[in-house]
Amino acid sequence: MKIYDTPGFPNPARIRIVLAEKGLEQRFEFVPVDLIAAEHKQAAFLAKNPSGVVPVLELDDGTHIAECVAITEYLDNLDGAPTLTGSTPREKALVHMMQKRADDWMIDGIGIYFHYATPGLGATLQAYKSPEWAGRKEWGERQLEKFTNGMRYFDGVLARTPYIAGDSFSMADITVYCALLHAAFINIGVTDDYPALKAWQAKVAERPSVKNRSGQ
Amino acid sequence: MKIYDTPGFPNPARIRIVLAEKGLEQRFEFVPVDLIAAEHKQAAFLAKNPSGVVPVLELDDGTHIAECVAITEYLDNLDGAPTLTGSTPREKALVHMMQKRADDWMIDGIGIYFHYATPGLGATLQAYKSPEWAGRKEWGERQLEKFTNGMRYFDGVLARTPYIAGDSFSMADITVYCALLHAAFINIGVTDDYPALKAWQAKVAERPSVKNRSGQ
Repeated sequence: MKIYDTPGFPNPARIRIVLAEKGLEQRFEFVPVDLIAAEHKQAAFLAKNPSGVVPVLELDDGTHIAECVAITEYLDNLDGAPTLTGSTPREKALVHMMQKRADDWMIDGIGIYFHYATPGLGATLQAYKSPEWAGRKEWGERQLEKFTNGMRYFDGVLARTPYIAGDSFSMADITVYCALLHAAFINIGVTDDYPALKAWQAKVAERPSVKNRSGQ
Repeated sequence: MKIYDTPGFPNPARIRIVLAEKGLEQRFEFVPVDLIAAEHKQAAFLAKNPSGVVPVLELDDGTHIAECVAITEYLDNLDGAPTLTGSTPREKALVHMMQKRADDWMIDGIGIYFHYATPGLGATLQAYKSPEWAGRKEWGERQLEKFTNGMRYFDGVLARTPYIAGDSFSMADITVYCALLHAAFINIGVTDDYPALKAWQAKVAERPSVKNRSGQ
Protein backbone atom coordinates (compact mmCIF):
# COMPACT_ATOMS: atom_id res chain seq x y z
CA MET A 1 0.00 0.00 0.00
CA LYS A 2 1.09 3.57 -0.64
CA ILE A 3 0.66 6.89 1.12
CA TYR A 4 1.01 10.10 -0.88
CA ASP A 5 2.11 12.80 1.53
CA THR A 6 4.60 15.53 2.34
CA PRO A 7 6.83 14.69 5.33
CA GLY A 8 6.75 17.20 8.16
CA PHE A 9 3.37 18.75 7.31
CA PRO A 10 0.48 18.69 9.80
CA ASN A 11 -2.04 16.36 8.12
CA PRO A 12 0.65 13.91 6.96
CA ALA A 13 1.94 13.89 10.56
CA ARG A 14 -1.52 12.80 11.76
CA ILE A 15 -1.33 9.64 9.67
CA ARG A 16 2.36 9.00 10.44
CA ILE A 17 1.43 9.00 14.15
CA VAL A 18 -1.51 6.64 13.51
CA LEU A 19 0.82 4.27 11.61
CA ALA A 20 3.29 4.31 14.51
CA GLU A 21 0.53 3.79 17.11
CA LYS A 22 -0.66 0.75 15.17
CA GLY A 23 2.81 -0.61 14.27
CA LEU A 24 2.02 -0.40 10.56
CA GLU A 25 4.78 1.82 9.18
CA GLN A 26 6.66 -1.00 7.43
CA ARG A 27 3.59 -1.95 5.35
CA PHE A 28 3.47 1.35 3.47
CA GLU A 29 5.49 2.96 0.72
CA PHE A 30 5.56 6.77 1.02
CA VAL A 31 5.29 8.80 -2.19
CA PRO A 32 6.28 12.47 -1.74
CA VAL A 33 3.98 15.25 -3.00
CA ASP A 34 5.51 18.70 -3.65
CA LEU A 35 3.11 21.12 -1.92
CA ILE A 36 5.30 24.17 -2.62
CA ALA A 37 4.95 23.49 -6.36
CA ALA A 38 1.18 22.94 -5.87
CA GLU A 39 1.47 19.36 -7.15
CA HIS A 40 -1.67 18.52 -5.13
CA LYS A 41 -3.70 21.01 -7.19
CA GLN A 42 -2.83 19.42 -10.56
CA ALA A 43 -4.93 16.93 -12.53
CA ALA A 44 -2.82 13.84 -11.74
CA PHE A 45 -3.25 14.33 -8.00
CA LEU A 46 -6.87 15.54 -8.20
CA ALA A 47 -7.72 12.21 -9.87
CA LYS A 48 -6.65 10.55 -6.62
CA ASN A 49 -8.27 13.14 -4.34
CA PRO A 50 -10.60 15.78 -5.81
CA SER A 51 -10.23 17.82 -2.59
CA GLY A 52 -6.59 18.41 -3.51
CA VAL A 53 -5.09 17.74 -0.09
CA VAL A 54 -2.57 15.29 1.37
CA PRO A 55 -2.35 12.61 2.62
CA VAL A 56 -3.99 10.02 0.38
CA LEU A 57 -3.88 6.28 1.01
CA GLU A 58 -3.74 3.95 -2.00
CA LEU A 59 -4.91 0.40 -1.35
CA ASP A 60 -3.42 -2.54 -3.26
CA ASP A 61 -6.58 -2.71 -5.42
CA GLY A 62 -5.96 0.88 -6.54
CA THR A 63 -8.70 2.46 -4.38
CA HIS A 64 -7.78 5.90 -3.06
CA ILE A 65 -8.81 6.89 0.46
CA ALA A 66 -8.54 10.59 1.26
CA GLU A 67 -9.32 12.54 4.45
CA CYS A 68 -7.50 11.79 7.71
CA VAL A 69 -10.59 10.50 9.54
CA ALA A 70 -11.29 7.99 6.78
CA ILE A 71 -7.65 6.87 6.58
CA THR A 72 -7.51 6.54 10.37
CA GLU A 73 -10.72 4.47 10.44
CA TYR A 74 -9.10 2.14 7.89
CA LEU A 75 -5.76 1.79 9.67
CA ASP A 76 -7.24 1.55 13.17
CA ASN A 77 -9.64 -1.25 12.20
CA LEU A 78 -7.22 -3.35 10.10
CA ASP A 79 -6.34 -5.58 13.07
CA GLY A 80 -9.93 -5.74 14.34
CA ALA A 81 -8.91 -4.01 17.58
CA PRO A 82 -9.49 -0.26 17.26
CA THR A 83 -7.65 1.86 19.84
CA LEU A 84 -7.82 5.33 18.28
CA THR A 85 -11.43 5.55 17.08
CA GLY A 86 -13.28 4.02 20.05
CA SER A 87 -14.58 0.51 20.56
CA THR A 88 -17.97 0.99 22.30
CA PRO A 89 -20.74 3.09 20.72
CA ARG A 90 -20.23 5.77 23.41
CA GLU A 91 -16.47 5.90 22.82
CA LYS A 92 -16.90 6.10 19.04
CA ALA A 93 -19.38 8.95 19.51
CA LEU A 94 -17.11 10.94 21.84
CA VAL A 95 -14.06 10.44 19.60
CA HIS A 96 -15.93 11.55 16.48
CA MET A 97 -17.52 14.54 18.23
CA MET A 98 -14.15 15.77 19.49
CA GLN A 99 -12.54 14.91 16.16
CA LYS A 100 -15.00 17.19 14.34
CA ARG A 101 -14.32 20.06 16.76
CA ALA A 102 -10.56 19.47 16.40
CA ASP A 103 -10.83 19.49 12.60
CA ASP A 104 -13.08 22.55 12.35
CA TRP A 105 -11.57 24.73 15.04
CA MET A 106 -7.94 23.65 15.18
CA ILE A 107 -6.78 22.10 11.89
CA ASP A 108 -8.95 24.33 9.68
CA GLY A 109 -8.49 27.30 12.02
CA ILE A 110 -4.70 27.43 11.80
CA GLY A 111 -4.54 26.04 8.24
CA ILE A 112 -6.89 28.59 6.68
CA TYR A 113 -5.26 31.41 8.67
CA PHE A 114 -1.86 30.31 7.31
CA HIS A 115 -2.96 30.07 3.68
CA TYR A 116 -5.29 33.10 3.57
CA ALA A 117 -3.92 35.68 6.01
CA THR A 118 -0.15 35.03 5.57
CA PRO A 119 2.03 34.25 2.51
CA GLY A 120 1.53 30.57 3.36
CA LEU A 121 3.62 28.20 1.24
CA GLY A 122 4.52 30.87 -1.31
CA ALA A 123 3.50 32.28 -4.65
CA THR A 124 2.72 29.12 -6.64
CA LEU A 125 0.22 27.77 -4.12
CA GLN A 126 -1.26 31.20 -3.37
CA ALA A 127 -2.74 31.23 -6.88
CA TYR A 128 -5.12 28.47 -5.68
CA LYS A 129 -6.20 30.37 -2.55
CA SER A 130 -8.66 32.94 -3.99
CA PRO A 131 -6.11 35.76 -4.42
CA GLU A 132 -8.73 37.98 -6.11
CA TRP A 133 -11.21 37.85 -3.22
CA ALA A 134 -11.51 41.11 -1.24
CA GLY A 135 -12.63 39.34 1.96
CA ARG A 136 -9.68 36.93 1.84
CA LYS A 137 -7.40 38.34 4.55
CA GLU A 138 -10.22 39.03 7.02
CA TRP A 139 -11.52 35.52 6.40
CA GLY A 140 -8.08 34.15 7.25
CA GLU A 141 -7.84 36.27 10.39
CA ARG A 142 -11.25 35.11 11.60
CA GLN A 143 -9.88 31.57 11.49
CA LEU A 144 -7.10 32.47 13.90
CA GLU A 145 -9.80 33.68 16.31
CA LYS A 146 -11.56 30.32 15.91
CA PHE A 147 -8.27 28.51 16.58
CA THR A 148 -7.68 30.60 19.73
CA ASN A 149 -11.22 29.85 20.96
CA GLY A 150 -10.46 26.21 20.23
CA MET A 151 -7.34 26.31 22.41
CA ARG A 152 -9.46 27.73 25.24
CA TYR A 153 -12.12 25.05 24.75
CA PHE A 154 -9.67 22.13 24.69
CA ASP A 155 -7.81 23.57 27.69
CA GLY A 156 -11.12 23.35 29.56
CA VAL A 157 -11.70 19.79 28.37
CA LEU A 158 -8.19 18.72 29.42
CA ALA A 159 -8.62 20.25 32.86
CA ARG A 160 -11.30 17.55 33.39
CA THR A 161 -10.08 14.49 31.46
CA PRO A 162 -6.58 13.12 30.67
CA TYR A 163 -7.20 13.03 26.91
CA ILE A 164 -9.42 14.98 24.51
CA ALA A 165 -12.15 12.34 24.23
CA GLY A 166 -11.87 10.94 27.78
CA ASP A 167 -9.55 8.47 29.48
CA SER A 168 -7.77 7.14 26.37
CA PHE A 169 -5.50 8.64 23.74
CA SER A 170 -7.46 8.82 20.45
CA MET A 171 -7.61 10.19 16.91
CA ALA A 172 -8.87 13.50 18.38
CA ASP A 173 -5.67 13.93 20.43
CA ILE A 174 -3.59 13.38 17.29
CA THR A 175 -5.61 15.99 15.42
CA VAL A 176 -5.29 18.68 18.10
CA TYR A 177 -1.58 17.89 18.58
CA CYS A 178 -0.84 18.26 14.85
CA ALA A 179 -2.80 21.53 14.63
CA LEU A 180 -0.56 22.82 17.45
CA LEU A 181 2.50 21.64 15.45
CA HIS A 182 1.30 23.78 12.55
CA ALA A 183 0.73 26.74 14.89
CA ALA A 184 4.22 26.35 16.41
CA PHE A 185 5.68 26.40 12.88
CA ILE A 186 4.31 29.94 12.49
CA ASN A 187 5.35 30.92 16.03
CA ILE A 188 1.95 30.60 17.68
CA GLY A 189 2.66 28.60 20.81
CA VAL A 190 0.56 27.26 23.66
CA THR A 191 1.03 29.87 26.39
CA ASP A 192 0.55 29.62 30.15
CA ASP A 193 -3.01 30.88 29.54
CA TYR A 194 -3.80 27.25 28.65
CA PRO A 195 -2.11 25.21 31.42
CA ALA A 196 -4.00 21.94 30.90
CA LEU A 197 -3.47 22.07 27.12
CA LYS A 198 0.22 22.80 27.64
CA ALA A 199 0.71 19.88 30.07
CA TRP A 200 -1.19 17.52 27.74
CA GLN A 201 0.94 18.69 24.77
CA ALA A 202 4.15 17.88 26.69
CA LYS A 203 2.76 14.45 27.64
CA VAL A 204 1.71 13.61 24.04
CA ALA A 205 5.11 14.76 22.72
CA GLU A 206 6.69 11.98 24.79
CA ARG A 207 4.65 9.16 23.25
CA PRO A 208 6.95 6.92 21.17
CA SER A 209 4.51 7.19 18.21
CA VAL A 210 4.86 10.97 18.28
CA LYS A 211 8.53 11.23 19.25
CA ASN A 212 9.86 8.62 16.82
CA ARG A 213 7.39 8.89 13.95
CA SER A 214 8.78 8.79 10.42
CA GLY A 215 8.94 11.82 8.13
CA GLN A 216 9.85 14.52 10.66
CA MET B 1 -32.45 9.16 25.83
CA LYS B 2 -33.23 12.59 24.36
CA ILE B 3 -32.61 14.32 21.07
CA TYR B 4 -32.65 18.12 20.96
CA ASP B 5 -33.61 19.13 17.43
CA THR B 6 -35.89 21.14 15.18
CA PRO B 7 -38.23 18.97 13.12
CA GLY B 8 -38.04 19.48 9.37
CA PHE B 9 -34.53 20.98 9.30
CA PRO B 10 -31.71 19.33 7.33
CA ASN B 11 -29.33 18.13 10.07
CA PRO B 12 -32.17 16.93 12.33
CA ALA B 13 -33.55 15.04 9.31
CA ARG B 14 -30.23 13.19 8.99
CA ILE B 15 -30.61 11.73 12.48
CA ARG B 16 -34.36 11.08 12.10
CA ILE B 17 -33.50 8.95 9.03
CA VAL B 18 -30.75 7.12 10.94
CA LEU B 19 -33.20 6.37 13.76
CA ALA B 20 -35.74 4.99 11.28
CA GLU B 21 -33.09 2.91 9.46
CA LYS B 22 -32.08 1.37 12.79
CA GLY B 23 -35.63 1.01 14.20
CA LEU B 24 -34.74 3.17 17.20
CA GLU B 25 -37.30 5.99 17.07
CA GLN B 26 -39.32 4.78 20.04
CA ARG B 27 -36.32 4.88 22.36
CA PHE B 28 -35.90 8.66 22.12
CA GLU B 29 -37.71 11.67 23.48
CA PHE B 30 -37.50 14.66 21.12
CA VAL B 31 -37.00 18.10 22.68
CA PRO B 32 -37.70 20.97 20.25
CA VAL B 33 -35.18 23.81 19.82
CA ASP B 34 -36.40 27.15 18.41
CA LEU B 35 -33.88 28.01 15.69
CA ILE B 36 -35.80 31.10 14.54
CA ALA B 37 -35.43 32.59 18.04
CA ALA B 38 -31.72 31.55 18.03
CA GLU B 39 -32.25 29.31 21.06
CA HIS B 40 -29.23 27.25 19.91
CA LYS B 41 -26.97 30.30 20.30
CA GLN B 42 -27.89 30.92 23.98
CA ALA B 43 -25.94 29.76 27.03
CA ALA B 44 -28.30 26.93 28.03
CA PHE B 45 -27.93 25.24 24.65
CA LEU B 46 -24.21 26.08 24.24
CA ALA B 47 -23.57 24.17 27.48
CA LYS B 48 -24.87 21.08 25.66
CA ASN B 49 -23.08 21.84 22.39
CA PRO B 50 -20.53 24.67 22.20
CA SER B 51 -20.82 24.61 18.39
CA GLY B 52 -24.39 25.89 18.75
CA VAL B 53 -26.01 23.57 16.22
CA VAL B 54 -28.74 20.93 16.31
CA PRO B 55 -29.21 18.02 16.74
CA VAL B 56 -27.72 16.98 20.08
CA LEU B 57 -28.13 13.53 21.61
CA GLU B 58 -28.39 13.26 25.41
CA LEU B 59 -27.51 9.86 26.86
CA ASP B 60 -29.17 8.60 30.04
CA ASP B 61 -25.98 9.40 32.01
CA GLY B 62 -26.30 13.05 30.93
CA THR B 63 -23.50 12.95 28.32
CA HIS B 64 -24.18 15.15 25.30
CA ILE B 65 -23.15 13.95 21.85
CA ALA B 66 -23.16 16.61 19.13
CA GLU B 67 -22.31 16.41 15.42
CA CYS B 68 -24.24 14.13 13.07
CA VAL B 69 -21.31 11.80 12.32
CA ALA B 70 -20.74 11.18 16.04
CA ILE B 71 -24.46 10.65 16.72
CA THR B 72 -24.71 8.30 13.74
CA GLU B 73 -21.68 6.28 14.91
CA TYR B 74 -23.41 5.89 18.28
CA LEU B 75 -26.80 4.86 16.91
CA ASP B 76 -25.43 2.63 14.18
CA ASN B 77 -23.23 0.66 16.57
CA LEU B 78 -25.76 0.26 19.42
CA ASP B 79 -26.88 -3.17 18.16
CA GLY B 80 -23.35 -4.30 17.27
CA ALA B 81 -24.31 -4.55 13.60
CA PRO B 82 -23.43 -1.31 11.81
CA THR B 83 -25.16 -0.83 8.45
CA LEU B 84 -24.68 2.91 7.84
CA THR B 85 -21.02 3.47 8.81
CA GLY B 86 -19.39 0.42 7.22
CA SER B 87 -18.37 -2.90 8.75
CA THR B 88 -15.00 -3.72 7.13
CA PRO B 89 -12.02 -1.32 7.34
CA ARG B 90 -12.39 -0.54 3.61
CA GLU B 91 -16.12 0.19 3.95
CA LYS B 92 -15.58 2.40 6.99
CA ALA B 93 -12.91 4.33 5.08
CA LEU B 94 -15.07 4.87 2.00
CA VAL B 95 -18.10 5.92 4.07
CA HIS B 96 -16.06 8.42 6.10
CA MET B 97 -14.29 9.81 3.02
CA MET B 98 -17.59 10.40 1.22
CA GLN B 99 -19.18 11.66 4.43
CA LYS B 100 -16.51 14.36 4.74
CA ARG B 101 -17.02 15.45 1.12
CA ALA B 102 -20.80 15.46 1.65
CA ASP B 103 -20.44 17.55 4.83
CA ASP B 104 -17.95 20.06 3.41
CA TRP B 105 -19.35 20.51 -0.09
CA MET B 106 -23.07 19.81 0.30
CA ILE B 107 -24.26 20.43 3.89
CA ASP B 108 -21.87 23.34 4.55
CA GLY B 109 -22.16 24.55 0.95
CA ILE B 110 -25.92 25.05 0.97
CA GLY B 111 -26.11 25.89 4.69
CA ILE B 112 -23.52 28.68 4.64
CA TYR B 113 -24.98 30.05 1.39
CA PHE B 114 -28.43 30.16 3.04
CA HIS B 115 -27.27 31.88 6.23
CA TYR B 116 -24.70 34.29 4.70
CA ALA B 117 -25.93 35.18 1.21
CA THR B 118 -29.72 35.16 1.85
CA PRO B 119 -31.89 36.39 4.78
CA GLY B 120 -31.70 32.81 6.11
CA LEU B 121 -33.92 32.20 9.13
CA GLY B 122 -34.56 35.88 9.76
CA ALA B 123 -33.35 38.83 11.79
CA THR B 124 -32.78 37.25 15.22
CA LEU B 125 -30.45 34.54 13.93
CA GLN B 126 -28.72 36.86 11.43
CA ALA B 127 -27.17 38.70 14.38
CA TYR B 128 -25.05 35.56 14.96
CA LYS B 129 -23.88 35.33 11.33
CA SER B 130 -21.19 38.05 11.16
CA PRO B 131 -23.49 40.83 9.88
CA GLU B 132 -20.68 43.41 10.12
CA TRP B 133 -18.28 41.52 7.87
CA ALA B 134 -17.79 43.11 4.42
CA GLY B 135 -16.88 39.80 2.75
CA ARG B 136 -20.00 38.09 4.11
CA LYS B 137 -22.22 37.91 1.02
CA GLU B 138 -19.42 36.91 -1.35
CA TRP B 139 -18.37 34.24 1.14
CA GLY B 140 -21.92 32.89 1.10
CA GLU B 141 -22.08 32.92 -2.68
CA ARG B 142 -18.79 31.03 -2.96
CA GLN B 143 -20.42 28.27 -0.95
CA LEU B 144 -23.18 27.90 -3.53
CA GLU B 145 -20.46 27.37 -6.13
CA LYS B 146 -18.96 24.66 -3.91
CA PHE B 147 -22.39 23.05 -3.55
CA THR B 148 -22.88 23.09 -7.34
CA ASN B 149 -19.44 21.52 -7.87
CA GLY B 150 -20.45 18.94 -5.27
CA MET B 151 -23.63 18.07 -7.22
CA ARG B 152 -21.46 17.51 -10.30
CA TYR B 153 -19.01 15.36 -8.34
CA PHE B 154 -21.68 13.16 -6.74
CA ASP B 155 -23.49 12.84 -10.08
CA GLY B 156 -20.26 11.37 -11.45
CA VAL B 157 -19.93 9.01 -8.47
CA LEU B 158 -23.53 7.83 -8.83
CA ALA B 159 -23.06 7.17 -12.55
CA ARG B 160 -20.61 4.44 -11.43
CA THR B 161 -22.04 3.06 -8.15
CA PRO B 162 -25.60 2.63 -6.82
CA TYR B 163 -24.90 4.58 -3.62
CA ILE B 164 -22.48 7.34 -2.64
CA ALA B 165 -19.95 5.09 -0.90
CA GLY B 166 -20.43 1.98 -3.06
CA ASP B 167 -22.98 -0.83 -3.20
CA SER B 168 -24.79 -0.06 0.09
CA PHE B 169 -26.87 2.82 1.41
CA SER B 170 -24.82 4.63 4.08
CA MET B 171 -24.49 7.70 6.28
CA ALA B 172 -22.99 9.54 3.27
CA ASP B 173 -26.21 9.02 1.26
CA ILE B 174 -28.24 10.46 4.12
CA THR B 175 -25.98 13.51 4.29
CA VAL B 176 -26.16 14.28 0.56
CA TYR B 177 -29.93 13.65 0.51
CA CYS B 178 -30.54 16.07 3.39
CA ALA B 179 -28.35 18.75 1.82
CA LEU B 180 -30.54 18.44 -1.28
CA LEU B 181 -33.63 18.81 0.95
CA HIS B 182 -32.20 22.09 2.20
CA ALA B 183 -31.47 23.22 -1.35
CA ALA B 184 -35.00 22.32 -2.49
CA PHE B 185 -36.37 24.42 0.39
CA ILE B 186 -34.74 27.48 -1.21
CA ASN B 187 -35.76 26.42 -4.72
CA ILE B 188 -32.45 24.97 -5.84
CA GLY B 189 -33.39 21.64 -7.37
CA VAL B 190 -31.47 18.79 -8.96
CA THR B 191 -31.80 19.49 -12.69
CA ASP B 192 -31.42 17.17 -15.68
CA ASP B 193 -27.77 18.27 -15.78
CA TYR B 194 -27.25 15.70 -13.02
CA PRO B 195 -29.13 12.61 -14.24
CA ALA B 196 -27.50 10.02 -11.96
CA LEU B 197 -27.92 12.25 -8.89
CA LYS B 198 -31.57 12.85 -9.81
CA ALA B 199 -32.33 9.13 -10.24
CA TRP B 200 -30.57 8.32 -6.94
CA GLN B 201 -32.53 11.10 -5.18
CA ALA B 202 -35.84 9.61 -6.39
CA LYS B 203 -34.74 6.13 -5.25
CA VAL B 204 -33.68 7.33 -1.78
CA ALA B 205 -36.95 9.28 -1.38
CA GLU B 206 -38.79 5.94 -1.60
CA ARG B 207 -36.93 4.29 1.28
CA PRO B 208 -39.34 3.78 4.21
CA SER B 209 -36.82 5.44 6.57
CA VAL B 210 -36.90 8.56 4.42
CA LYS B 211 -40.55 8.53 3.37
CA ASN B 212 -42.01 7.82 6.80
CA ARG B 213 -39.45 9.42 9.12
CA SER B 214 -40.74 11.40 12.08
CA GLY B 215 -40.65 15.17 12.30
CA GLN B 216 -41.39 16.12 8.70
